[in-house]
Amino acid sequence: MTSQHPSPTIEPLAPWRSPLARAIHRNRALPSARYLQLATLRVDGTPANRSVVFRGFLTGTNRLMFISDRRSEKINQIIHNPATEACWYFTKTREQFRLAGRLWLISADTAPATLQSARVTLWQNISDSARRQFAWPQPKAPRSPNDAFATHTLDLQAPPLCFCLLLLTVHSVDHLDLRAEPQNRHLYQKLENQPPENSQWQTTIVNP
Amino acid sequence: MTSQHPSPTIEPLAPWRSPLARAIHRNRALPSARYLQLATLRVDGTPANRSVVFRGFLTGTNRLMFISDRRSEKINQIIHNPATEACWYFTKTREQFRLAGRLWLISADTAPATLQSARVTLWQNISDSARRQFAWPQPKAPRSPNDAFATHTLDLQAPPLCFCLLLLTVHSVDHLDLRAEPQNRHLYQKLENQPPENSQWQTTIVNP
Repeated sequence: MTSQHPSPTIEPLAPWRSPLARAIHRNRALPSARYLQLATLRVDGTPANRSVVFRGFLTGTNRLMFISDRRSEKINQIIHNPATEACWYFTKTREQFRLAGRLWLISADTAPATLQSARVTLWQNISDSARRQFAWPQPKAPRSPNDAFATHTLDLQAPPLCFCLLLLTVHSVDHLDLRAEPQNRHLYQKLENQPPENSQWQTTIVNP
Repeated sequence: MTSQHPSPTIEPLAPWRSPLARAIHRNRALPSARYLQLATLRVDGTPANRSVVFRGFLTGTNRLMFISDRRSEKINQIIHNPATEACWYFTKTREQFRLAGRLWLISADTAPATLQSARVTLWQNISDSARRQFAWPQPKAPRSPNDAFATHTLDLQAPPLCFCLLLLTVHSVDHLDLRAEPQNRHLYQKLENQPPENSQWQTTIVNP
């Protein structure tokens, strides 16, 4: 089986980080530019797909961060099979990034300490309204009365047990630029059997 | 194995059609409101995810229409396993629809005639620039010189062999409305073992 957490090694910047940073910057006026769609596998083997909010990169790495509630269905899906592809479409610049890789679940009992401290820092940095959702009643259960969603005081220092950090380690990226005539498409492929600290990428320019 | 094409039966309007129509209408000023993300399974069993353009419903049914190039990777994925979930996020009204179901490939040699005529009509109704892409060189092959993408005259009456219609038959819908305080979430589940002409749906109001 696979290990419980990714290596904490510092990685060199992957070549797709620069075009992705440019797209994030150029689309920054739209709050929805930080939403992307994350495909996973249900336990029955069919695809699942939902929007998640990009929470930045884990410091010193090419790993994207998301947050999730331990009670949401995607957590069991990821434990069962961590394969994923994220699709990130930027409406203003008409660019699509497809990021294929694997997800890592960082929960209250995950070592090492660097990942745990990333989880706690993220908890402290999200908005009050994002934090409050982790005190809401069981997701997807029959609707609770409105007062079950009343504001709770949540400890800023200690995230609740159900607050999880998800890390996406990327092994290939498909960047499609729809504005160009004809469109431009770049593929980035991580070369296998490379240690993370000197991981290498192959970049190919292909037909759209 | 599964059949080659869905039943051409007329279906009653599913209960999720009305909230979806409202979202499409309220977000109509944004061209990107017709983009959704379609998750499928690669032949190796990992998830794939990309943006597609919604091309309306097949007349008289609840089946969503998309177009695709026979040469694109998703076609072989669908032939291998037609399970899908589409994620459709509407930025203006902050609503998400997750549509799980199966995809049907309608290509040049698909019967019955009603599905073939839907394919031809769609070919005639898409834009010139959308049509021209079907004459472009092999997708994802090493980049061809720019003149290989030069304008071709395409027959309006007869779509090229690589022009495919994709139909999505939906078996469950998860509608999340992020604007409400607390958020609203409705699940729509198609009841099994019902013929399409009197298919029934169960609607449940659940916690977000």
